[in-house]
Amino acid sequence: MKASIITIGDEILIGQIVDTNSVSIARKLNSIGIIVAEKLSIGDSAEAITTTLSEAMAKHDVVIVTGGLGPTKDDITKFTLAKIFNCDMRYDEREAEHICQLLARRGIAFTELNRSQALLPECCTTLHNAHGTAPGMWFDTPKGGALVSLPGVPFEMEHLMDDIVIPRLKARYELHDIVHRTLITRGIPESILAERISAWEDALPDYLHLAYLPAPNIVRLRLSAYDIERESAEREIERQFDLLHNLIGDNIVGFEGATVEQLVHDILCERGLKLAVAESCTGGTIASRFTAIPGASQYFMAGVVSYSNESKCDLLGVRPEDIERYGAVSESVALQMAEGVRRVAKADYAIATTGIAGPAGGSAEKPVGTVWMAIATPSGSRAVMRNSGTDRSQIINRASAYAIEMLYEELRKGGK
Amino acid sequence: MKASIITIGDEILIGQIVDTNSVSIARKLNSIGIIVAEKLSIGDSAEAITTTLSEAMAKHDVVIVTGGLGPTKDDITKFTLAKIFNCDMRYDEREAEHICQLLARRGIAFTELNRSQALLPECCTTLHNAHGTAPGMWFDTPKGGALVSLPGVPFEMEHLMDDIVIPRLKARYELHDIVHRTLITRGIPESILAERISAWEDALPDYLHLAYLPAPNIVRLRLSAYDIERESAEREIERQFDLLHNLIGDNIVGFEGATVEQLVHDILCERGLKLAVAESCTGGTIASRFTAIPGASQYFMAGVVSYSNESKCDLLGVRPEDIERYGAVSESVALQMAEGVRRVAKADYAIATTGIAGPAGGSAEKPVGTVWMAIATPSGSRAVMRNSGTDRSQIINRASAYAIEMLYEELRKGGK
Repeated sequence: MKASIITIGDEILIGQIVDTNSVSIARKLNSIGIIVAEKLSIGDSAEAITTTLSEAMAKHDVVIVTGGLGPTKDDITKFTLAKIFNCDMRYDEREAEHICQLLARRGIAFTELNRSQALLPECCTTLHNAHGTAPGMWFDTPKGGALVSLPGVPFEMEHLMDDIVIPRLKARYELHDIVHRTLITRGIPESILAERISAWEDALPDYLHLAYLPAPNIVRLRLSAYDIERESAEREIERQFDLLHNLIGDNIVGFEGATVEQLVHDILCERGLKLAVAESCTGGTIASRFTAIPGASQYFMAGVVSYSNESKCDLLGVRPEDIERYGAVSESVALQMAEGVRRVAKADYAIATTGIAGPAGGSAEKPVGTVWMAIATPSGSRAVMRNSGTDRSQIINRASAYAIEMLYEELRKGGK
Repeated sequence: MKASIITIGDEILIGQIVDTNSVSIARKLNSIGIIVAEKLSIGDSAEAITTTLSEAMAKHDVVIVTGGLGPTKDDITKFTLAKIFNCDMRYDEREAEHICQLLARRGIAFTELNRSQALLPECCTTLHNAHGTAPGMWFDTPKGGALVSLPGVPFEMEHLMDDIVIPRLKARYELHDIVHRTLITRGIPESILAERISAWEDALPDYLHLAYLPAPNIVRLRLSAYDIERESAEREIERQFDLLHNLIGDNIVGFEGATVEQLVHDILCERGLKLAVAESCTGGTIASRFTAIPGASQYFMAGVVSYSNESKCDLLGVRPEDIERYGAVSESVALQMAEGVRRVAKADYAIATTGIAGPAGGSAEKPVGTVWMAIATPSGSRAVMRNSGTDRSQIINRASAYAIEMLYEELRKGGK
C-alpha cells in the first residue's frame, strides 16, 4: 500500500514557509503501514493541481493533499477537485452552521467568505473539521483508492488525520506493519563509524534496511523493516542494537529523538542533583532546551541571561574590574558566571557562556564566534574557549550544544 | 525558466527530518528569476531516482537535487546519475587530496570510504565543496538545461549554491526578474481582512498576484510579480502597500520576516529603553527570542529563568509567603517576578511568565496551560491570565508570544 503526499501553495515553491505538514502526515501513514512513495509540492495553479493529482491517483492507492482550502481568492483546491472528479459544488448546511458557531465563539462576524467555506464538491465525503472553518474532503478514486484533501493549518490537519483519516484508512485497507527504529550516536564521524560497524552491517538480515543520518557531532543509525510482522521485527532490531552496544556503547546517546540534554536530564534526575545556567551570548537557549523537557523542574533551579555587564556583576557577582581588565568575553568572566549562578541558585552544577554572537562586536583578537564556556561543579570549575562559527544563530546553537556536551562529559566522569 | 527541486532520502519520506534544504534552494532560485515549478521528495531507490530525475529533466530547464552523496552504502545518488547519463565513474585526485586534508584538519583518519567520495561520474563537472567531503556535480541535460546534484548537509549545500551554482546559472541563462514582497498583519482574522481590503485587491494590476498566509494572530499578505522589470515591480508593490497602510495601518507588523519581538526591539532601541525578562514556564524562550536579534545587547539587560521557588525568592525578591498562599502560578507571583527583575536588572520595562507547562502539575483549579503573564513599567504593573493550550511546547511558545504581544501593546500606548 503506497501513498503520495501533495502540498499545495505558492508559498512552498518560493521558499516562504517550511513544510512541516508533510512530515507529520508521513509519520502517521508509516505508523499504520502505508509506505510514502513520494512527496510533491506544487503551486496554486489549476493546471498543476489537476495534472499532479491525476498522476498520483493513477500511481498510488492513497493520496493526501493539504493546502489551498482557505476562504480567499487564491485558494482554488476544492473547485479544481470538483473538476477532476467531474461533479458540481453543493452547499453543506451542517458545515455552514458549524463555521458560524465557531466564529461566534471567537467573536468574529460570519461573512460571505466564511459561508463559501461550506461549499463543497458533491461527490466527496465531508470530513468535519471541529477545530477550524475549512472541512476536509474524502474522494474515492477510480482505482479503488482514496484522495483526501485537508486544510493546511497544522493543528487542523493533525486533528483530521488523527480523528478521521487514519481510522478510515485502517478500517478500509488491510495494512502491513512498517517498523523504524533509530539509534543516536555522538562523537564518531560517519565514515569512521561505518568502518567500525561494517561487519555488523554486513551481517544484518536482508529485511532490515540501515540508513546513516549525520548531523554535527551526531550520527543517527536507522533500521527499517517493511512487511514483517511488527513484534518479530522489533525484537530483531532490539537484538541488533544490543550488538551495536558492544561495539560503540560509549558513543550511544539513545534512541529516536534522544538528545544530549535528555541524557543530562536523566542523570540529574537519577542522582538528585540541581542545575543552574548563566548565559550571555546564548541568550536563554540553553535554559529553554532543558526546560522544554517535561520534568525539568526536578533539577533546573534557575537560569540567568546576564546580557549586560551590570547584570553579570549584580546578579552573578562577577567582579567589574575583571570585566574591565579581561573583557566580558574571557575565561575569568565565564568562570565567575558559572560559579556565581551555581552559588545564587543553590545548584550542584552550573554552566555558563559568554561570547560574541555577531554580526557586530568582533575584533582581531576576539573575532565573532569566540565563545568562552565554563562549568562549575562541587569539586571545582574550569573553562574552555571554542570558536562557534560565523552566523549569529549558528553561533548561539553550537555554543549551546558545546556547553551542554561539556556538562554531560563532566557528569559521566562523576558517575564512574 | 523553470526548475524542479528534488530531495532524496528515505528519512524525508518517513517523516524523520524536516526538509529545509529545498526552502533555501527555492529562495535562491527565485532571487535570480528562476521559477520553482515543483518540489519532489523521493527515497534512496535507484528506480525512483532514475524515473523522477528523467521526468524532471524532460519538463524543466533546471533540476537541483540534494542528498544521497554520503560515504555509506545507503547513498546511491552518484552511481544512479552515472547510469542516467550513461557514463563511467572516474577518480578525481584533486578532490581526494582535498578530502584527505579536510579530515586531517579535523583529526580524522582518511579511510577507504572517504576515498570513495572522490569517485565521480565521468561526464559531470565537479563542483568543489570547500566545506565538506562530498563534491557537487553539474550535468548538462539533453535539452540544454542543467541538473545539479548537491550534498544534503545544509551548510555545504548553501555554500555550493551561493558560490558556484547560482553564479553559473546567472552566467549561462538570461533570466527575468521575480519579485516577492510580504506584508505582515496582526489581530484581524483572514476572512475579515479579505473583506476589508477587497476593493484594494480587485484594483491590483493584473501582473501582481496576491496570496494570504494565515498563522495564529497573524496574516501575511504576499504580492508577487513575474516577468516584470524588478524596479518598476518593486515601485508598484510599494505603492500598493502604502494604500494598504491607509486601510489597516494599525494592524501592520512589518515586512518579510517581521515579528512582534522585532517591533519591540525597534521601539526599545529608538527610545533608548531597557528590557528585562523573568521566566518560569517559558524557560528562557522569551529571552532567546530577543537575543536572537542582532543588536539586542543595546536594550536587553537580563533574563532570569526562575524555575524553582527558591530562585523566584532569592533572585527576584518574590515573597515566600505569597508563593505559599497563592501558589507559584498566580497573579501575585507574576507581578512580583516582573517587578523584581525590572528592579534587579535596572530595566525600564520587564515581562514575566509563570504557568503550568505540563504534562504534570495541573489541577482542577489550575489546569495544564494556565499561564500568568505580568508586565512592569515605569508607571506601574499589571498581570493577565491566559490558558495557552495543552501541549508543553505549544504552551511555551504561545505564552511567550502573548507576553511579547503584551509588551508591544504597552510600548505602543506609551509612544502615543
